[in-house]
Formats: sequence, structure tokens, C-alpha cells
Amino acid sequence: MIRVGIIGAAGYAGAELIRYLAIHPVAKIAYLVSDSSEGKPISEVYPSFLGQDLPLCEKYSIERVKELCDFVFTVRGNGGAMAIAREILDAGIKMIDVPADFRLKDPEVFQKFYKIPHTEPELLKEAVYAIPELRREQIKTARLAANPGCYATCSILSLAPLVRGGYIDLDSIIIDAKSGVSGAGRSKLSVPGLFAETNEGFKAYGVTTHRHTPEIEQEFDSLSGGSAHISFTPHLVPMNRGILATCYATYTKETLSGEALHEIYADFYKDAFFVRVLPAGAQPVSKCVSGTNFCHIGTASDERCNRCIITGVIDNMGKGAAGQAVQNFNLMNGLDETAGLTMPAVYP
Amino acid sequence: MIRVGIIGAAGYAGAELIRYLAIHPVAKIAYLVSDSSEGKPISEVYPSFLGQDLPLCEKYSIERVKELCDFVFTVRGNGGAMAIAREILDAGIKMIDVPADFRLKDPEVFQKFYKIPHTEPELLKEAVYAIPELRREQIKTARLAANPGCYATCSILSLAPLVRGGYIDLDSIIIDAKSGVSGAGRSKLSVPGLFAETNEGFKAYGVTTHRHTPEIEQEFDSLSGGSAHISFTPHLVPMNRGILATCYATYTKETLSGEALHEIYADFYKDAFFVRVLPAGAQPVSKCVSGTNFCHIGTASDERCNRCIITGVIDNMGKGAAGQAVQNFNLMNGLDETAGLTMPAVYP
Amino acid sequence: MIRVGIIGAAGYAGAELIRYLAIHPVAKIAYLVSDSSEGKPISEVYPSFLGQDLPLCEKYSIERVKELCDFVFTVRGNGGAMAIAREILDAGIKMIDVPADFRLKDPEVFQKFYKIPHTEPELLKEAVYAIPELRREQIKTARLAANPGCYATCSILSLAPLVRGGYIDLDSIIIDAKSGVSGAGRSKLSVPGLFAETNEGFKAYGVTTHRHTPEIEQEFDSLSGGSAHISFTPHLVPMNRGILATCYATYTKETLSGEALHEIYADFYKDAFFVRVLPAGAQPVSKCVSGTNFCHIGTASDERCNRCIITGVIDNMGKGAAGQAVQNFNLMNGLDETAGLTMPAVYP
Amino acid sequence: MIRVGIIGAAGYAGAELIRYLAIHPVAKIAYLVSDSSEGKPISEVYPSFLGQDLPLCEKYSIERVKELCDFVFTVRGNGGAMAIAREILDAGIKMIDVPADFRLKDPEVFQKFYKIPHTEPELLKEAVYAIPELRREQIKTARLAANPGCYATCSILSLAPLVRGGYIDLDSIIIDAKSGVSGAGRSKLSVPGLFAETNEGFKAYGVTTHRHTPEIEQEFDSLSGGSAHISFTPHLVPMNRGILATCYATYTKETLSGEALHEIYADFYKDAFFVRVLPAGAQPVSKCVSGTNFCHIGTASDERCNRCIITGVIDNMGKGAAGQAVQNFNLMNGLDETAGLTMPAVYP
Repeated sequence: MIRVGIIGAAGYAGAELIRYLAIHPVAKIAYLVSDSSEGKPISEVYPSFLGQDLPLCEKYSIERVKELCDFVFTVRGNGGAMAIAREILDAGIKMIDVPADFRLKDPEVFQKFYKIPHTEPELLKEAVYAIPELRREQIKTARLAANPGCYATCSILSLAPLVRGGYIDLDSIIIDAKSGVSGAGRSKLSVPGLFAETNEGFKAYGVTTHRHTPEIEQEFDSLSGGSAHISFTPHLVPMNRGILATCYATYTKETLSGEALHEIYADFYKDAFFVRVLPAGAQPVSKCVSGTNFCHIGTASDERCNRCIITGVIDNMGKGAAGQAVQNFNLMNGLDETAGLTMPAVYP
Repeated sequence: MIRVGIIGAAGYAGAELIRYLAIHPVAKIAYLVSDSSEGKPISEVYPSFLGQDLPLCEKYSIERVKELCDFVFTVRGNGGAMAIAREILDAGIKMIDVPADFRLKDPEVFQKFYKIPHTEPELLKEAVYAIPELRREQIKTARLAANPGCYATCSILSLAPLVRGGYIDLDSIIIDAKSGVSGAGRSKLSVPGLFAETNEGFKAYGVTTHRHTPEIEQEFDSLSGGSAHISFTPHLVPMNRGILATCYATYTKETLSGEALHEIYADFYKDAFFVRVLPAGAQPVSKCVSGTNFCHIGTASDERCNRCIITGVIDNMGKGAAGQAVQNFNLMNGLDETAGLTMPAVYP
Repeated sequence: MIRVGIIGAAGYAGAELIRYLAIHPVAKIAYLVSDSSEGKPISEVYPSFLGQDLPLCEKYSIERVKELCDFVFTVRGNGGAMAIAREILDAGIKMIDVPADFRLKDPEVFQKFYKIPHTEPELLKEAVYAIPELRREQIKTARLAANPGCYATCSILSLAPLVRGGYIDLDSIIIDAKSGVSGAGRSKLSVPGLFAETNEGFKAYGVTTHRHTPEIEQEFDSLSGGSAHISFTPHLVPMNRGILATCYATYTKETLSGEALHEIYADFYKDAFFVRVLPAGAQPVSKCVSGTNFCHIGTASDERCNRCIITGVIDNMGKGAAGQAVQNFNLMNGLDETAGLTMPAVYP
Repeated sequence: MIRVGIIGAAGYAGAELIRYLAIHPVAKIAYLVSDSSEGKPISEVYPSFLGQDLPLCEKYSIERVKELCDFVFTVRGNGGAMAIAREILDAGIKMIDVPADFRLKDPEVFQKFYKIPHTEPELLKEAVYAIPELRREQIKTARLAANPGCYATCSILSLAPLVRGGYIDLDSIIIDAKSGVSGAGRSKLSVPGLFAETNEGFKAYGVTTHRHTPEIEQEFDSLSGGSAHISFTPHLVPMNRGILATCYATYTKETLSGEALHEIYADFYKDAFFVRVLPAGAQPVSKCVSGTNFCHIGTASDERCNRCIITGVIDNMGKGAAGQAVQNFNLMNGLDETAGLTMPAVYP
């Protein structure tokens, strides 16, 4: 058994971690931190946990981490992980930060997009940007993993084969992404978050300014050795979970046929259990990966326009957050990558 | 390993069985029957099963059942199980019928509500109406279990403590039930089933005539030794999964306080892992049990009107179908009742 | 032209009033009061009003009311109308209060349910509880109309023919009501109001304690000359608009056949343009009245249980609030009752 | 009064036409054609029409058209209008075809995309592709108007100012469109159309092959005098109504600032009552135009990528079908363009 702590248990991503870890064959939830629910069972916040054997919520302290945990997940607001990462790592405990504190390698870019200075630039260097399908070996030996953003995970997986292979013009990339609303989290209350305001409506937001833009570009640069400038446009779908990224890019070399395009993806992901490339021409449906760590990808070549159209779907809370975190946890602990993660989607 | 067959794998309840059994610690799916998908992987019907190790779909034959299965779940249309139950049982293979063929003890009542004659009245006598919380010992030794209906399960669990204890007038019972639309299944196409027709709307249906009425009354009679006449009104909620039954009944003896009422429930279900009685005054939310085998119950006493108001929630596909079937499977095979069923709900 | 003011324009009911009045043939919106949006166009709050010719929002003052208005709608929080009603009426201006300040005749009952003392008991006596189908003549001559609650309107219309006719036992009435979420309004933000928390879930709330209970009983008492004690249970449906009330009651005299029951309703509402009694056996669908002032009613007799089951639907924002307010406005101003209210529902 | 006929009244677009025309100040619905509902009131199909004064449904005959109609709307399946258009026009009756029979100028392109030959190529030449904001004068004098497709209307309005002004590269245009499901209509039943399959999911469809692609390109060519090749990708949103088109294009000349871009739109649409250009930086919400003939447009310049991102929303049944048809009807009959079309959206 590996005893794990979840620092920030009462938000959606924290709860989703509990959901996966509650049936994990090796992990044992030993420490739940939630300031707002101190002393209470987490089932008071989420009655979906009634019947689970879970510790009461506590406030955070490094002493309790040392006492109770072999491994830590941080799921705090911006800046919340960088404030405690060093003391956790110094105690010899590995950790995964699920939010954004350790994703962007350049502290200045971090500050520009998150509006706070980065106080741990050395750890930033050390942290591994942890998409297992692209950096499996690095993750296995990491002390500190930065779990990628939901939109970023979906976008990067959708285009990685073409970016790494040099098939597309890095400055032609347009990612039109759509997400369910759970991505907005549970703690910020506002009129637009009301059911009646969101339901039966559709809108774009953060046009040209979303925080996942530099995260995606950083990874594309790393994959290609080049310098990408992408247009990334997120939209809000009236549903709870799921992301679909529709990715457009112009071919650099010859125009690929639908079959050739599909072959590149099938080959690239042939050993990736959680990434499923659909048959050529098929389109993925976001709900087919709901509640799981799977990613489904559809490929189409718009030959008339010399452009490919790639569609990827994940669960923003699964492969886009807690699922991928557990996958990384498995790798960092020498476990089978799929441990505790194989249940099919709840459908319909 | 117990090798299981699912006869009728392509409907929603069949798919839900696969979902639970795919991660069951002891069951191994060995045989999937779907006439419409013969020769194909079930993931062509449900891409949510991509990545799962499952056999191709076949047509039904008793030879293949004998060859491949230690246990069988039937999930066919009305009359589909009674046509094959005898040959399966004769082969020494236990089975659970998820739909309605073996629920009603009286063949005439069956014929009245299902419009076909019952061809296996002897098996009808033998079949155990399998709500584990009420008939655990009988189920453990059964060859043939009739898995209760979704509305019936929720209604019966919600009122069983009061019916058995004689606290309420059996002719005063009103059950106002609300269900997500997956209960209508996948095979019948009609205009009212279209998304645009169902979404943003709410309606009652089957008023005074729903098939689960005699099922509920049969079980109330069994629990009470009396004769119940209930008003049961189902409604359609624009959501995929979940049932909430709001149950009203007049007290026979003295008016119960909220605390006394709650105490009856807490005591009755104190050993039932999957039935969770909420604190007095709390109301259950259907989505808190979504995708699981749990049932949450809220109790309220309307003392001014000498009446109790009990609210129960289940997932119509979970405790209302496949989840309860797996729970029964566990009992019929000497396993821990909770095997493969402990994952918390997907929330939100 | 009748110049109208809306005191409390930025909430959902205020906006719905604007929507109806914007195309009213006689009313002209002359004064919009919203403290939070003072000096701004209402289209900043609701872009759905872009293109409409509407005054800017202002703060409330009686001087502006006198200057600009021939008629006033108040749509403020509890206590907001009683604070200004007298000065409006004293200026010779008739008014309709859409919320609850003038609905309950007994100030003590008001205080019990709304937690504030009533400061205008004399106006309470004068105010007409304004369901046009039941008090048309009184409304025509009223200075001050109390617009009924959404649940109350639906419940009362659903049972009025039986209550007035003495066909049912007043103490047997159970109203199981379901509402879309816009009824909760726009100003109160809370976690349960988030899209992700409400979507795909169903729950009861306010069990045995909801504020519309005394309102319904008061009107049943008035209709019957008796004293009703009802169980009223509201539920939240994951949709924006619409109420369905499923009403149960035991017959006092003989058990009515379905046809006889239907006949009572068809006769009672034969001259009510906005109340449509469906053919016997048909069930109303909430979305068929969405965005309108219509009420559809379905009748069923559960003869086996000596009980009727009546189902009524309205739009909580239409016949349940702004639509009925405009209907009352028409009556109070000698206009055709249907003026500006005949557009069919937006469907699907 | 202008007596109108609706040939194809029982589909969603036909019903939406009835909804608008039922309150139109000049039009009077005189003739409703529905083969499937012959002899019945349309309120049997849509209870939302209970209370409306409408003729019974009939079968189509040119004699009845001549007898009853001054104007005709055709809303039939592909090929249904071209079969009767000539006899209607020969009778001196103007008409609008709401679906696709007369949209594409080239009969070969029509045949390629609709799989049937075009039998009225002369009428194809005569028909006016009727977006009032772009061809108001032509429409005023037309006998036969081809009402544009829903996606096409939204896409064309969103980019017309830039296409006509030559600001963008015609081969760089990518339109990522999202629609509510009512666009699929009511007559075709399939598993993917079921509520449970659509709800809580998101997907693309018709990638690189959708029929509105040539319609959009045809109009862009007409506006620009050039030859556009666009990537058009439609998606299905789990909501009933609404389209949002996110349009990307590279600047041909200099990179435009956000302000300069906004100014182009504000100027282009300054006299278009139904097209509302939002303040620079604001994003349109589909539900703010729900049930109306309005189009809201948001403009953003992704200067870093030398690209604009334009977002337009309409109601696919309103400005995308019946609303625009009524707008065209008004123009073709010398009425105020806005007659019967000014009601604000139902919100929320």
C-alpha cells in the first residue's frame, strides 16, 4: 500500500482524485486536506462518498504529511503548491501538482498569465510536464510532476504526431476547443455559472488570452524544436464533463490523404493504452470517455484546403486532471500505468 | 474466475453490466450475445469499450452457453428469458434475468401487464425476486433470480421499513416517481425520444397503468402480509440517469416525529452497505448515486398532515438494473456482496 | 398607451415582464428600476434586449413614478413592495406586486413564513389574490393585485374545479410539484445553483416547509369554505423553465370515472382562454407552455384507489409570474385579457 | 391581411413559421399542409398551438393554394419544393422555399451534395439567395426566394464585412460551427438522436463534407468576386436551439487591431436591425437570441497570429430558418422588415 495525501480535497479535481483512488489497488487515501471542511467527513461535501472508508478532512501541516503520506497530490489554487512543494520534497516525498504552478518553464510567462510571481524557479526547472504518452521515462524518475491542463492535454495529444513529425506548419495551428462546465470548478460563484444561465446556451470565452495557450505552445516547441504561435479558442458547452478539441493545421509538405494521416496517428499511439485512434473517418464523442482516463482521436484530411482536421476528446476531470494524475502516480511508483484506471466510461 | 455470459449485450442494461463486470475481481466476461452486432466488437456499438478485453458478439446458442459460461445474465425483451431459462438452468448454470420475465408471481398478472402468456409458470414459482436487502438468504441459494425493476427497487427500498413494521396504511401509499430517460432503453425509436422533444421538458406518463405497480404491490404484500393498493405515477426527467421516488403514506398508529421516523430507517438499514439513510431532514440527490449500486434515502414527517414523506434515489441502470444484478451475482456465487461495486459516483 | 414602470427590472421575473411588455399593444415601458444597474441599459445585463427601445435603469423614487408611470409592477425582494405600495397607490397609480408581499391575508402567517413583520396589514386586506380564472371581476376593479406564486398558481388551477365542487377530501390533498431552476432567481449565488451541481440530478427541497403551502391552502379554503391541510413537496428539475404539479386527492363522494372527472374540468375552464384541459388520458408536457401564459391540465382517475391524479403545467416565469401579471394588468386596465399574451410556446 | 400557406407544417421549421406568423400583424395563416396529419389540428402534433386559431392540416393541392393563399412558404424535404414551385409561381403567387432546393446556383453542385438532379434549373437562376442584410433590394422584387441554411446564414453574416472588404485571405477561412440539435429535424429517427445519446456529449460530424459548405462559398465568391475554399466543421451541442460559428481567417493586408476590426463590423451593420455587433471584446451567447431573428456578433483580433476570430450566434430555427423567412416575407410584401419579429429572446 502507498499512503497518499490529497491537499485540496473539496474541489472538483480533488473529489475526482478520491473517486479514482478509492478503488485503486495499491494507493490508500490517508490524508485529506480541506480548510473549509476541517474536522468533517468529505461525504458532507459530496454525499457520493457515503460508504467509502476515508479519513476526516484536516488543515494542512507538513508534520501530518510526514506522518501519514508516502505520496502527495496538491490540488490548490494558483500559488498554493509552490508554497509547500519544497518542504514536501525535502521530506523525501514525491508529489504531483494537479493545477498550474509547475507547468510553465519560464517564470515570466507564468507571472504574465497567472498574475503572481513564481517563488520556486528551481523547482520549475526540475518539474516534469507530465503527459505520459510523451514523457513516460522522465515521469518514472520524477520527484515533482506538473499535471497538464485539461485543454492542453487534449490539444497536445491531438496534434503531437503531426508536430513531432514535422507534417504541419506550426504557425497555422488553430485549436477550437469546447469544454463542459466542471472545468470552472466549484469555488467561484458568479451569475454566469448559474444553471439557468449556462443551460441551453453556448459561448466562447478567453478568446486570444486563455492560460493554456502558452502551455500548449511550450509543448509544441519541445516536440518540434521550433516555435509555435497558435490560436486557441475555448468554448463552454452546457454539459458537466468532457472536452473536444477541433484542431486545424496546414500541411508543410505534401497534402496527406485521409489514410496516410490516419496511419501516422495509429502508429504514433500504437502502444498508448489510453489513447485510442478511431478508424479513419470516424468522429469521437466526448461522452464515450466520460469518467475515464481515455482519449479518443478522430482524423480527417481536408485535402481540398491542404489542411488536416483532428478531433480529440477527453474527460476534463479524467485524462484532463485526476485520471492523468493517477496515471502519473502509477509511473512514479513503478506500478502498471493502468492500475485503477481501466473502468469504461459511464454511458449513456 | 467465474466465466459469465450476457445474453442481450447491446442494450443499455447489457452495456451497463459489461461496465461493472469489466472491472469485477472475479467475473470474467466470456460470452456476449447480440443478434444485431453478431461478429462485431461491442466497442463498435459503444466506443466507451475501446481498450477493454472483450469477446466479439455472437448469436445465442445453448451450446455456446455450456461451452463458455459458468453464469448467465439475460437482458432480453419481454419473453426473451422465459424462452431459454429452462435449458440454461438444466445445464446446471445459474442465471439472473435483468428484465421482467420472472418478477411477477402470478402468471395472469404477468399476462395482463405484459400482453403475452407466461410459458414457464413453474420457474416463476422458483424465481427469487432479488432485492438483496430484503431477501439476502434466499438469493444466496437461488438458481434463478428475477432482478427487480428500477422504479420498483427504489420504491420498495424507500418504504420497506414502514411497510414491514406496520407503521403505514397500505391503501394510503402514493409513489410519485421521476426517472432519467435511459430507462426507456435504446431500441425503440420515436419522436418523443428525440433530444429536442425531451430536453427542457417534464411530463408524467403511464398514469395509473405502469407495469411496476403490481411488482411493488406484490412485494409490499409480501413484506406486510396485507394487501396494498398504491397509486404509482412515473415521470420523465430530462437527464440520462437516476430515479427519485417521493413516497407518501398515512400513519396507521400514532404520528411519528421526524426523529422517530429516521430511527426506524437507520435501524432497518444498519447493515445494508448500499442503502444509506441520510441525516434527518436531509434530501437525497439522484446524481450522488449516479453510476453506482447505492441507494440514498431521506425521511421527513409531515406531522401536521399525519403523513410521512420518504424520498429515495438510485441510478436506474445501477441499483435499478445492472448494479443490483452484480450484487445478486456476488451473493449467488458466495462472494462478498460488494465485489466490484464500491466505486463512488461520478460527480458532478 | 399606458406607461408602465417595473420596479426591480434586473431579476428574472423583471426581465420576463420586459419581454412580454416589449410587444404589448398598449403598454409602453417608461421606467425601469434596478439599483445594481443604475444608469445602464438593461441590455448590458440581458443582451437579449439589444435592439429594444427601452429606458435606462434608474434608482427608485416616487417622484419619477408619478412623472413617468400610469401603472407599476413591483418585482423586489421580500418586503420591498410593502415599503412603497402606499405611496404609489396614494398617487392614484394602480400596481401589481409580482412577489409575495401581499399574497397571504394573515400577517402572522406572513411573518411565520417570510421571517419579517408585515407593515401594511390594511393593504393586505385590500389586495386581491389575482388568479384571473378564479377572481376575474375582483381583479378588474382592484388597485393592488398580489400576483400568485408559481407553484401556487399551478397547484390551485389544477385542483380548483374539484375543491370548489366539493369532490375531494381537503385533508387528502398531496401536491408533488416539480420546477425548472429559474424559479430560484438570479441574485442568490450558491454551490447548489452551479450548472454542474444541478445538471443531471434531481432532488426534493423544502419538504413540509415551503412558503407556497399556506398560499395554496388559503385559496383552497376560500374556494371550498372549508379548511385544507395539504402536503406540498417541491422538486428541482434540471431545466430552465416550467412547473408540473402532480396532484393527488381522495374522492369525498362516489369514485369518479375518467370521463366524469374530465367533464368537470372541461366545464369549469370552458371560458378560460389560458387554461387548456387536455383530452381525457392525455398528459401535459411542461415545455408546451414554455415562454407563455398558458396552463395545460391532464386528468386521470385512479378508480382502483378511489383517487384522482391531476397534472398541471405552466411556465413558472409565464403564468407563474410575468405572464399572469400582464394578464392581470390587462384586466385592471379594461383591456382584452389576452392582449400581448397569445404567442405560442417556443418549441422545441 | 395577406393569406399565407405553409406547405410542410408538421416539421420543426414549419411549426416555427406558425409560431411567428400566429402573431404577425398582417399575415393570416390560411392553409396548412401536412400529409401525415391530414384532417387534424396541428395542435395534435404540437400542443403548444392549443388556443391558436389555425386551419386543419390538409394534403397539398394547387387548387387549394390558389383558393386560399396570397403567399406560400414551402418547408418540404429535398426536391419537395422544386416539384411544385412552377405551378405556384405560375398562379401569380410568390413563395419562399425554406429548405435547400433553390440555394445553390449550379445544378451540378446541387446534385453532388443532395444526390438528386435539379429539375428546375431556370427557377434556380431566378431564385434570390435571401439574406436580407446582403440582398435587401433583390428580395423586395423577387417572386421566388431561397431561404439560406442555418449554418450558412450564421457563417456568412459573421464574415461578410471582411469578405466584401477584401480584408482576409479567402483560402484561409476556417469556420468551426456548433449547433443545437433541432437542426436535425423531427422526421428522421435514429439511435444518435435519442436524448440519452446526445445529452452530456459533444461531437463533430460531416467533417469536410457538409452541404452548407458550397452554399457559404458561393456567397463568399459573390461578395468578393473571388473564389473561396473554406474548411467548415459542424458540431452538435446538447441543447435544443442555437448556432455559434467561430470563424478564423488570416488578414490579407495589415494586421487589424481589435478596434479597427470592430469598427468595420459596426459600420457594415449600422442599419441592420437584426444584426447586433457587440462591443469590442464581448462574446455573444447563443441563448440571447433564442426564439428570435437576431444575430449577435463578437469580434476579436489575434494580432500575434495575424488572424481574426469572429463569433456569430443565431437561433437555427429563427434567423437560421423561420425568422429569416418571415423577414423575407415582409420585404417581398412591402412591409416593414421587422413586422412580427421584434419580441426579445426567451431568457433564461
